[in-house]
Amino acid sequence: MEVRAAVAFGAERPLSIETVDLEGPKEGEVLVEVKATGVCHTDAYTLSGADPEGLFPTVMGHEGAGVVVGVGPGVKSLKEGDHVIPLYTPECRECEYCLNPKTNLCQAIRTTQGRGVMPDGTSRLSLNGDPLYHYMGTSTFANHTVLPEIAAAKIREDAPFESVCYIGCGVTTGIGAVVYTAGVEPGSNVVVFGLGGIGLNVVQGARMVGADKIVGVDLNPAKKAVAERYGMTHFVNPNEVEGDLVPYLVDLTGGGADYSFECIGNVNVMRQALECAHKGWGQSVIIGVAGSGEEISTRPFQLVTGRTWKGSAFGGARGRTDVPKIVDWYMEGKIEVDSMITHTMPLKEINTAFDLMHSGESIRSVVTF
Amino acid sequence: MEVRAAVAFGAERPLSIETVDLEGPKEGEVLVEVKATGVCHTDAYTLSGADPEGLFPTVMGHEGAGVVVGVGPGVKSLKEGDHVIPLYTPECRECEYCLNPKTNLCQAIRTTQGRGVMPDGTSRLSLNGDPLYHYMGTSTFANHTVLPEIAAAKIREDAPFESVCYIGCGVTTGIGAVVYTAGVEPGSNVVVFGLGGIGLNVVQGARMVGADKIVGVDLNPAKKAVAERYGMTHFVNPNEVEGDLVPYLVDLTGGGADYSFECIGNVNVMRQALECAHKGWGQSVIIGVAGSGEEISTRPFQLVTGRTWKGSAFGGARGRTDVPKIVDWYMEGKIEVDSMITHTMPLKEINTAFDLMHSGESIRSVVTF
Repeated sequence: MEVRAAVAFGAERPLSIETVDLEGPKEGEVLVEVKATGVCHTDAYTLSGADPEGLFPTVMGHEGAGVVVGVGPGVKSLKEGDHVIPLYTPECRECEYCLNPKTNLCQAIRTTQGRGVMPDGTSRLSLNGDPLYHYMGTSTFANHTVLPEIAAAKIREDAPFESVCYIGCGVTTGIGAVVYTAGVEPGSNVVVFGLGGIGLNVVQGARMVGADKIVGVDLNPAKKAVAERYGMTHFVNPNEVEGDLVPYLVDLTGGGADYSFECIGNVNVMRQALECAHKGWGQSVIIGVAGSGEEISTRPFQLVTGRTWKGSAFGGARGRTDVPKIVDWYMEGKIEVDSMITHTMPLKEINTAFDLMHSGESIRSVVTF
Repeated sequence: MEVRAAVAFGAERPLSIETVDLEGPKEGEVLVEVKATGVCHTDAYTLSGADPEGLFPTVMGHEGAGVVVGVGPGVKSLKEGDHVIPLYTPECRECEYCLNPKTNLCQAIRTTQGRGVMPDGTSRLSLNGDPLYHYMGTSTFANHTVLPEIAAAKIREDAPFESVCYIGCGVTTGIGAVVYTAGVEPGSNVVVFGLGGIGLNVVQGARMVGADKIVGVDLNPAKKAVAERYGMTHFVNPNEVEGDLVPYLVDLTGGGADYSFECIGNVNVMRQALECAHKGWGQSVIIGVAGSGEEISTRPFQLVTGRTWKGSAFGGARGRTDVPKIVDWYMEGKIEVDSMITHTMPLKEINTAFDLMHSGESIRSVVTF
């Protein structure tokens, strides 16, 4: 079938709106009509050329929501009409990873997904007969896409697509890091480094689970008012701190953060996040993606005296199991999503979303179809 | 009272056997007749002068066992005749740390212990009228010592002092890291870097809890036979591995270690230990003490893909609660201790213990009184 898609022909080039060919779903796959998609920093990262695994030409996008409009042979868990969120971290419920309760990193289709193709090794997308790569197994910058069945989370039908698409990446990454990766308990003191979309979702995740102090750290003073809306109790601008930031944060939290989160991708900040964690039990969670080849460092004494250093991908959430729950939390008012979607636009204006991101004007831009 | 003690007058000098004065126990303190004490790498580290917190002159020793022969005012949990193991990590059961189930690092007397004195700020030890520093709050290189009540674990009376003194540090540090810090489950694959006393105790801790593969890594081929006795299933000599050690260990463990332990104090090995841990859920525990100012490094991707980096001090064990249990495990035959005590000697030959340690001939030397 013919679909409208934003095609990335190469790094550092604007996306081009094209009519591309989408082959129907094969064994174990579903056809999804994409109703809305967020535009995320990860899309921008790949488009910038910095992503060593980036493949072109491709249809990008990985933060969508839509409706199943076709199913391939053997599909059992989904049917036409189901509302779904595409999952760049799938959940097969059969691999060694899915069967281990300590991880959400399903490996069932990792290799083919990384190669930009469906699990059978081929692409469903083409332009003028030449194949296009799938992106993160989702390719949501198109009004239709094909997904492996295990890469679609079925969600309730009363949830608005233009909001819950954000749960396909940013919301889940932030809230999941609090709930699933860290397991923040009520009364905890939390420090969040970086108050972009991920950081704000960490903040509201901490609020949801009953954290006590929720300290936000950002160089941009305008973030204070934004983050307070989502539950931040204390704002720290490192430029306004006299002396070292780490002892300041340790003092502010009465001995250190029970949990700290790095939501920037800066290896120096990752060190600060670890070192402001409380002696004896503080956990620091890395969410941000560092530049290729960059390294984190600290003195091992920081760990021997009881701090734990870990990371989080897709918030530690199991896509088909946990994403529908997060949609419920949104529908029940436990978390906010609508107010974070600062801009919406049609597909033909998608390049604007990248401009808004780079200028810092948006929390999240969403393309609606 | 007069006691016989090995006095360290300064770094890089042999211990000197002296008759020193020991003042009786004050409020909340007990007088202990030391029956046996191990000689540990930490003693040697301080004696070498490398320990930035080392204080001289002092009576060193922190791995003892003995009998309470006197109690100061207000002591409630101990009485004359009780058998005890001195605790350099005390357990007051009242401080913020003791009341947090995530840590064993009681802070009740940390400041004074670090300054080489009892909690009231004074020393009980003196020589010719000049005060001597206490060491790690224990000073077990003497036939009597004074301890804060919270720094003595009451143990069963049928346990032999010359064996269970080793539980005062080395045994607990290794086994506790497995049981308390990491929580190794039956069927886990474990990699242990460094097969000295701590590493051997990690090995037998892993055996006790039902680990599957227990891989030992050491440059000394003679360690193979030693470690197999305590449960090691695979020996790896990095000098005999073609190519990189990390992928070799990942392959040997079928994807990576569920748990890895660094028992050397080498920051490069700490990195290998982390990176050989299993994607998704592998935990790496630092036990070894690195040189002053040295740093660990890795790419944050290692954590974001599910590895956890943590550390362990005194095996994560709560001294008064857990040390008596470990003594039970020894008495019940769940762990071995006697065979690790390769040398015993009277106090006057204590310098021999350091020679045996530096030459690698001993697992543990014990001084008996």
